[in-house]
Amino acid sequence: MRQHIISIKEFEKKDIDALLDRAEAIDQGDYDPKALEDKILGVLFFEPSTRTRMSFEAAMARLGGASIDMGGVEASSVVKGETLADTIRVVSGYADAIVLRHPREGAAQLASEFASVPVLNAGDGAGQHPSQTLIDLYTIRQAMPLEGIDVGLLGDLRYGRTAHSLAYALTQYDVTIHTLAPEGLEMPPNVVEELRERGVEIVVHDEIGEFTRALDVMYVTRIQRERFPDSASYYAVASSYRVTPELLAEARERMIVLHPLPRVDEIDPRVDALPHAKYFQQARNGVPIRMALLLEVMG
Amino acid sequence: MRQHIISIKEFEKKDIDALLDRAEAIDQGDYDPKALEDKILGVLFFEPSTRTRMSFEAAMARLGGASIDMGGVEASSVVKGETLADTIRVVSGYADAIVLRHPREGAAQLASEFASVPVLNAGDGAGQHPSQTLIDLYTIRQAMPLEGIDVGLLGDLRYGRTAHSLAYALTQYDVTIHTLAPEGLEMPPNVVEELRERGVEIVVHDEIGEFTRALDVMYVTRIQRERFPDSASYYAVASSYRVTPELLAEARERMIVLHPLPRVDEIDPRVDALPHAKYFQQARNGVPIRMALLLEVMG
Amino acid sequence: MRQHIISIKEFEKKDIDALLDRAEAIDQGDYDPKALEDKILGVLFFEPSTRTRMSFEAAMARLGGASIDMGGVEASSVVKGETLADTIRVVSGYADAIVLRHPREGAAQLASEFASVPVLNAGDGAGQHPSQTLIDLYTIRQAMPLEGIDVGLLGDLRYGRTAHSLAYALTQYDVTIHTLAPEGLEMPPNVVEELRERGVEIVVHDEIGEFTRALDVMYVTRIQRERFPDSASYYAVASSYRVTPELLAEARERMIVLHPLPRVDEIDPRVDALPHAKYFQQARNGVPIRMALLLEVMG
Repeated sequence: MRQHIISIKEFEKKDIDALLDRAEAIDQGDYDPKALEDKILGVLFFEPSTRTRMSFEAAMARLGGASIDMGGVEASSVVKGETLADTIRVVSGYADAIVLRHPREGAAQLASEFASVPVLNAGDGAGQHPSQTLIDLYTIRQAMPLEGIDVGLLGDLRYGRTAHSLAYALTQYDVTIHTLAPEGLEMPPNVVEELRERGVEIVVHDEIGEFTRALDVMYVTRIQRERFPDSASYYAVASSYRVTPELLAEARERMIVLHPLPRVDEIDPRVDALPHAKYFQQARNGVPIRMALLLEVMG
Repeated sequence: MRQHIISIKEFEKKDIDALLDRAEAIDQGDYDPKALEDKILGVLFFEPSTRTRMSFEAAMARLGGASIDMGGVEASSVVKGETLADTIRVVSGYADAIVLRHPREGAAQLASEFASVPVLNAGDGAGQHPSQTLIDLYTIRQAMPLEGIDVGLLGDLRYGRTAHSLAYALTQYDVTIHTLAPEGLEMPPNVVEELRERGVEIVVHDEIGEFTRALDVMYVTRIQRERFPDSASYYAVASSYRVTPELLAEARERMIVLHPLPRVDEIDPRVDALPHAKYFQQARNGVPIRMALLLEVMG
Repeated sequence: MRQHIISIKEFEKKDIDALLDRAEAIDQGDYDPKALEDKILGVLFFEPSTRTRMSFEAAMARLGGASIDMGGVEASSVVKGETLADTIRVVSGYADAIVLRHPREGAAQLASEFASVPVLNAGDGAGQHPSQTLIDLYTIRQAMPLEGIDVGLLGDLRYGRTAHSLAYALTQYDVTIHTLAPEGLEMPPNVVEELRERGVEIVVHDEIGEFTRALDVMYVTRIQRERFPDSASYYAVASSYRVTPELLAEARERMIVLHPLPRVDEIDPRVDALPHAKYFQQARNGVPIRMALLLEVMG
């Protein structure tokens, strides 16, 4: 049993494998639907994230537990000037675990120092989002072994927290990482360096066709309009990185396309019908992975 | 078992009667309070509707089920540009059914095409709101048989979605429909025509006393201030359509007054104490009707 | 069994003692976690109060019950002009009890007149907040007998609803009340008079050191910036009333510091580590006290 889930970096390969195995068993119906029936999850989302919040609450409900939600920040004690440390100490008195989303990097670590119950990090700014990474790994593993594969990261690799975390986790496995990013949104040199130090090969691409043909897994992230000086330059970049059926015609047959969602223009809706498209399956995998995590800290 | 609940128009008379019978049995305590204990309802309200949302959540809780709520649109992935189709596909992976409220007509039908779980329409713009219509029918049936009665629709009959749906459902029964509406807010000709084609007699009134005396059921709808050019013209109309104890002194003894609520000025609070007033009973009926619907799609 | 919980003034000493005893038993695990499993709590917060709302929902969940939340006022029927009376009557049809927070004094009393289920007042403007007072008394009683003690009220004693309610409840016990407030924020003369008529001794202080040395319990309340003409005068007052380790060095050994939270500048975070600090324990006590109240009205 683990006290807190703050960063994917705390997980050794065997921990990850055990969690994915547990999620797989859950997916096959092998769990006690009353396992957490006397437990309460405190839901503290200091910035909205519908998908993550709803799937944590669904996971809690599937295990018989209840969730109590702080609601939006604008209606909370935060507007009265309460510190995160105080909020965490108070909610520790109400709940058996806390799931925290916060815009500030390091918030989850700070929270874990003041909490008297386990804290699950559901994303802290540019920091970590460990349950998302486990979902990504799980979705890949459903399609192919996590060994000897080519994983491509596409889109905003500078600010994209999920891409960094996934890349980090993949260093535990025998994979080659490929990257393709618009100018100015490349993966930061210190991240590249850290990944290489951990023994992974990184191939930097500059052409989407060649990139696509090289992959077993294409991980697409959202390019945010606000990163560009104007709409025209955003659309120019967005359209040249758009994943279409025409592009995927060149892909390996077993290649899968992932996206942490929500997507906007990055993936053509016509891709949804192709066997490559696994992003809705990936979203669905949020529930068994989060059930496994909730059992890990409260079960 | 029905896959989706989109429009009252999908219901044949025998379907409606069966649902009202089921709600009646539920009202008498004849239901399993754990019938949905392993089920999750995804609650997607793209516009607020406290009453509808709370009664769906209460219905789910009465059957032992859990609800996961998207929360307000301003805090959801919608603001990041996600399409309704994507939101529905994702929440289909978290929940066993989805209840959807949306400002756009046709949204529920669209949602049902992308959902892998049943969708219940809780109102889509000027479109349908089938559970409200079933509540209205159920409340009438508690007071009198749904045959050989005079039902009056009062207020905004142009934009009033609930009045249209109720009128449509009533064509399945042997009723006469009476209407009284301010100038410019009359029932649209195509709606009148459709009702008449389905064999119902429609009597158009222009005086509230005569209208009132003709009825077994008075269905009052809210006249919205924003439909009028200025406050003065709103108040002139609103006061001449106001339901008061003095007006009801002329009504048939068994006549009942319904209102989908919330009300503002349409019904004098002194009416609340009269035996005619059934609008709070009508609100309360939201729970057994919605329990019957939830059982229909998930039971 | 009690119909409504509106004001601490309705509670006789034996009622309070019985409730605190029940909370104590609950704290020791002596309760049925399915006691309210077929019950629904309607949560109507017309102004935000994260802490109170979350602890009521946690209390309900600990007893196996469900909560249905109206959500923020801006998304409710209130914006359409619905009266509190109508909202209460409608939610009475959905829930087995209602917990109400409202900015207007007297709102809970009004609500209880229209509700067909028990109403629990969770704070109504400058009025009452009985569950908070019971939490305060319970936290004191955990540390020392509620007899023969000196209780000090510090901060905004003019508008501070929790301080008034606590003082009122303490008149049932053999205590001396001490007060210290900034100029203009003293306890109102009519409150002082009412307390004295009920036989309690009140000592008015003007110096924080002497005040501190006189106490067994220090009850700190938040001084709100908006009570002052400018920031400078606020900071001058706030800093001279700040509770610090240096100040507490002079306190009695058994003296405890309480605060209804959230705190801003009133208590130095270094106090948190001292044995005097009981405000997080006090927050935690919200759950057993509210469990006892929910059982009182629905059990």
